[in-house]
Amino acid sequence: MSHLEKLQEWVADQNLDVAYISNPTDILYFTGFHSDPEERVLALFVFPEAEPFLFTPQLEVEAAQKAGWHQDVFGYLDHENPFALIAQHIKERTSKYNKWALEKADLPYARYEAVQEQFPEASFPGDASVFLDHLKLIKTPEEIELMKAAGEEADYAFQLGFAALSTQRTEQQVVAEIEYGLMKKGVMHTSFDTIVQSGDNAANPHGVPEKTPIKANSLALFDLGTVHQGYMSDATRTVAFGEPSAKQREIFDVCLQAQLAAMDAAKPGITAAELDHVARKIISDAGYGEYFIHRLGHGIGTSTHEFPSIMEGNDMVLQPGMCFSIEPGIYIPHVAGVRIEDCLYLTETGNQPFTHTPKELKVLPVK
Amino acid sequence: MSHLEKLQEWVADQNLDVAYISNPTDILYFTGFHSDPEERVLALFVFPEAEPFLFTPQLEVEAAQKAGWHQDVFGYLDHENPFALIAQHIKERTSKYNKWALEKADLPYARYEAVQEQFPEASFPGDASVFLDHLKLIKTPEEIELMKAAGEEADYAFQLGFAALSTQRTEQQVVAEIEYGLMKKGVMHTSFDTIVQSGDNAANPHGVPEKTPIKANSLALFDLGTVHQGYMSDATRTVAFGEPSAKQREIFDVCLQAQLAAMDAAKPGITAAELDHVARKIISDAGYGEYFIHRLGHGIGTSTHEFPSIMEGNDMVLQPGMCFSIEPGIYIPHVAGVRIEDCLYLTETGNQPFTHTPKELKVLPVK
Repeated sequence: MSHLEKLQEWVADQNLDVAYISNPTDILYFTGFHSDPEERVLALFVFPEAEPFLFTPQLEVEAAQKAGWHQDVFGYLDHENPFALIAQHIKERTSKYNKWALEKADLPYARYEAVQEQFPEASFPGDASVFLDHLKLIKTPEEIELMKAAGEEADYAFQLGFAALSTQRTEQQVVAEIEYGLMKKGVMHTSFDTIVQSGDNAANPHGVPEKTPIKANSLALFDLGTVHQGYMSDATRTVAFGEPSAKQREIFDVCLQAQLAAMDAAKPGITAAELDHVARKIISDAGYGEYFIHRLGHGIGTSTHEFPSIMEGNDMVLQPGMCFSIEPGIYIPHVAGVRIEDCLYLTETGNQPFTHTPKELKVLPVK
Repeated sequence: MSHLEKLQEWVADQNLDVAYISNPTDILYFTGFHSDPEERVLALFVFPEAEPFLFTPQLEVEAAQKAGWHQDVFGYLDHENPFALIAQHIKERTSKYNKWALEKADLPYARYEAVQEQFPEASFPGDASVFLDHLKLIKTPEEIELMKAAGEEADYAFQLGFAALSTQRTEQQVVAEIEYGLMKKGVMHTSFDTIVQSGDNAANPHGVPEKTPIKANSLALFDLGTVHQGYMSDATRTVAFGEPSAKQREIFDVCLQAQLAAMDAAKPGITAAELDHVARKIISDAGYGEYFIHRLGHGIGTSTHEFPSIMEGNDMVLQPGMCFSIEPGIYIPHVAGVRIEDCLYLTETGNQPFTHTPKELKVLPVK
């Protein structure tokens, strides 16, 4: 059953009349068509029985059809009232349009008001955001293939980044080398701003690449990802640039043990909270618990932060097809910042990571 | 009067009790603090009399203070209900909290529901999005300085792009050279995906850079911009790579005349629609009106598409301090695609462009 058919089934099961999908990423997920409409209206309307339709700026109608959407696409011009047109199209399709699902985590209040103006009798009991969060939890084999391709791109990005480390470059200039190398291969979008942090800056878990040179004899942290046909990669490696201190090696080893133990434990049947605990216990037992200040991981797919959240308090039982990160980190100001991350998918019996760059401490010569 | 004081004054004038600013770009505009909270809550609350406060994820509290926000910042942890905390903070500050302004074009419906849950008596008559659209229309001298700096970066990007044109590179690889050159200078963010289109692809006004080589003896179009401390540049140049055809030269000349005439006419007192007409008439009189299929320009500032929209039907009288693009384009499939764009700010008597790359047809040698 396609994603779209599942949405249609949900709309029917919930006794809803209309679902209004507004998030461009989710429209891509259901239709194969991607566009950033900025301030204009891009929408997918789905009904329990009638055929769904796409609604786009007039200039995008052809592109939507070319992207492989074979059902109706209706366009509008800038001077037209899009919601008046949408109301017409809906009323031509069905006589029931009072019970709506909205993407409540996405749809701006003003668009809700615009719907309400056209459908004064409407109520909005359905939350398509919550439905989508759950629908996206289990990836199809086709989705996993795209995420593998994105993972390969991330592995390539690490090679570019390791090769670019130099005391003659700033953190930002190493980012430049990574993104340049990716673009030369035709990888035009990263899934978030590439992070390169060296020395003390790596100990800031919310830091950004600075205009400061890469430091010799310290750790350097790379957190990066790409977008492959709408699917994301996200991975982190920490390497030594020159000789790290004994303390830095110790912290690295603890973090790596925690990451490997969690990779080993990630299989169907364990809960998200239990998996978080596997890594956290190792770090706490080593005396660094207070420096691991974020959750173990997050879901990933068409965005970098999806369900499941791998954290304390989340008793969701993990299942085959779920995709998420495992990324313990230890951040001690003026001592070390280490994070090691892979994203993976759960198989029937275990898991497969999307990234394969070795995780043991790599000591790169200073140059 | 600061932006924040103007917002406070508006809240008082409208007899509102609370304004909830939710858009991260607008929070930057009012507070100097920028952060992308993803799924977490970042908010600014402003009152007619009480002091405003920022509300952020706990990890961001320090960064907000460092960014120069000297009033209260309240944080929350992932397991806390942010809107319950927000309600507490509001009720500690003021006894009036029933009449709200929301950023209706930005705030997701679910967040409106969360506010309503905490404040069951609340009504939402104010639209801070509309107020902000108007507030942002007139830039301060400080804002114009930042936009000049962004314009200089765009001029530099054109130099990089012109130098990179080669039959040995694809459109995407020319994009790579531009963005690499910018990043090496520390310009880490473009204001939108850099566009390089060559030959037939340039005639697609909604096209993107392809994996196809740059074509000799044809036109190449560059549309690009950068972000400088939160302010955007946006400019377009079309150049010849080798000898263009006589027809291509003719189309280029018409487009350039239209752009220069509109630049000349852009001064306080003219309306947006009249300015659009200045350029459109030249292109129509030359017989190419049907190929100029978009508005003449758009406002620019902290985002690339703001008010004023320079288009037919917009009778807004232009005033000093307004910033917008002038970008006529002529797109004839299989013949030529030409667009020439500067953004500018209006002075008391005329205007000053933010970009200075020459606009006359530049014929670059094929390499």
